[in-house]
Amino acid sequence: MEANGEQYAANFSSIKEAQKRISLYIHKTPVLSSETLNAMSGRSLFFKCECFQKGCPLILYFKTSGNHAAALSLAAKLRGIPAYIVIPKNAPKCKVENVVRYGGQVIWSEATMHSRESVASKVLEETGAVLVHPYNDGRIISGQGTISLEFLEQVPLLDTIIVPISGGGLISGVALAAKSIKPAIRILAAEPIGANDAAQSKAAGRIITLLETNTVADGLRAFLGDLTWPIVRDLVDDVITVEDKEIIEAMKLCYEILKVAVEPSGAIGLAAVLSDGFRKNPAWQDSKKIGIVLSGGNVDLGVLWDSFRK
Amino acid sequence: MEANGEQYAANFSSIKEAQKRISLYIHKTPVLSSETLNAMSGRSLFFKCECFQKGCPLILYFKTSGNHAAALSLAAKLRGIPAYIVIPKNAPKCKVENVVRYGGQVIWSEATMHSRESVASKVLEETGAVLVHPYNDGRIISGQGTISLEFLEQVPLLDTIIVPISGGGLISGVALAAKSIKPAIRILAAEPIGANDAAQSKAAGRIITLLETNTVADGLRAFLGDLTWPIVRDLVDDVITVEDKEIIEAMKLCYEILKVAVEPSGAIGLAAVLSDGFRKNPAWQDSKKIGIVLSGGNVDLGVLWDSFRK
Repeated sequence: MEANGEQYAANFSSIKEAQKRISLYIHKTPVLSSETLNAMSGRSLFFKCECFQKGCPLILYFKTSGNHAAALSLAAKLRGIPAYIVIPKNAPKCKVENVVRYGGQVIWSEATMHSRESVASKVLEETGAVLVHPYNDGRIISGQGTISLEFLEQVPLLDTIIVPISGGGLISGVALAAKSIKPAIRILAAEPIGANDAAQSKAAGRIITLLETNTVADGLRAFLGDLTWPIVRDLVDDVITVEDKEIIEAMKLCYEILKVAVEPSGAIGLAAVLSDGFRKNPAWQDSKKIGIVLSGGNVDLGVLWDSFRK
Repeated sequence: MEANGEQYAANFSSIKEAQKRISLYIHKTPVLSSETLNAMSGRSLFFKCECFQKGCPLILYFKTSGNHAAALSLAAKLRGIPAYIVIPKNAPKCKVENVVRYGGQVIWSEATMHSRESVASKVLEETGAVLVHPYNDGRIISGQGTISLEFLEQVPLLDTIIVPISGGGLISGVALAAKSIKPAIRILAAEPIGANDAAQSKAAGRIITLLETNTVADGLRAFLGDLTWPIVRDLVDDVITVEDKEIIEAMKLCYEILKVAVEPSGAIGLAAVLSDGFRKNPAWQDSKKIGIVLSGGNVDLGVLWDSFRK
């Protein structure tokens, strides 16, 4: 697929190829719905539970969101090669534990993107390792695009899909595949106000990065990359930004009504669809059958509880 | 199906009939698995997520566990008739809220079974209402039996199913259907030590009720009824009892690894399969492919957190 004469890092063929490669190893993730949440939102909502994706290394490698570090650790372990995982000091404890559990070697960086990248460069230099970027990589984008293939097969009538946006890998794959199958489908990004680089980038027409981020959704603090930005620019129809308190409220609803244990990042799609900004915007009144990708799989119960008490 | 010349309150025909009746209204609940939990248990585990069952009144009426009160409230509301729900004073807040949300009229009783029954009798007398017992009812047992029909279609190779036991409705339905389809399948009940009336009843060969119960799994405090006991006596192969701390640990694993938000009662099957009592018992070494019913759907986040801190 091309736009502005530019070739994207992934396309419908690479996504179908990814699906073929991983289909032996995965089951479809279920789609859940709830009359209560439909009534609250005034739409028909369909939740694609990517958070249940199984712990197979091939899947985790190519169809992951929020588990990149653990996934690579496991994939490397099974191949008998070392994995060096650069982790910022403010990462949730459970993410670090998962890396260690799967045999990855933790290399600490400061919390800034700059520190993460310079530490990663140093590791590459010293070890001869190859960088596998968590989102700015055509293979990752293609794998995540398989979510749309499944989702539209399970719920063909979707007119809109809402996807959390961070570095843009997940939404790029979802948008590429969904718009290939169903060109008129609307793809909306959900982003925390405290890490709204995608909203700012879309408004400016170029990649904007932020000096700092401030959100409870730790999985959504990354910035768009040079491979994901063109896809987000061209294929994502708009970005809905939400407050942290809306994310926490949506996370509670996921637990109490859907019975799905998501991290804050995973619940942001529900937060978006329930937000006044979305509900009252005339532009989105015709989004009636909305798919919401529940991503992410690092539930840190300590942090969870702290956030519920805020 | 008969045993000891006795006709049970439900049978394979009534279960298939229930399935036909509810099949228009429900989707199959998914089955999840986890390599991590397989490794921890030394078996292949398949989790039937009944906790995701949708909020349709017909389903809730006939295929519910843990939601009986809310289900009846909703069913009655949709038919325009009143529902009087007798609730013990120590019931979790979220269960009461669900009843109110669905339009049920809450009638308080003390926490004992005796008080619950005498208050219910009084309501029946005063209002002319009909009692729908939460488990000691052939229609409820039949509806819950449909879980086995689905489960064995999804995972035909199961050699064992572990089911939480409280009043015995859920496990009666599951056992009747599973053993009709696959007579050699093993049906095990999972029960808290602090509410082990089923284990005691099986040992004594007659219904034993307890003076008091003491367990975090509030959904498992009821006692076997005269309709469920004969089925449990004849078709449940054994009862595995577990400590509250094992239930809490299993609930954490459900959240952190399966990403499923269960209440303590729902997690007890996993607790059982991970318990030393189960793992080291020679009688169960040949249970290799184990289905676990994750039941229950009342996640009270406050209680949840309190229990995690114990």
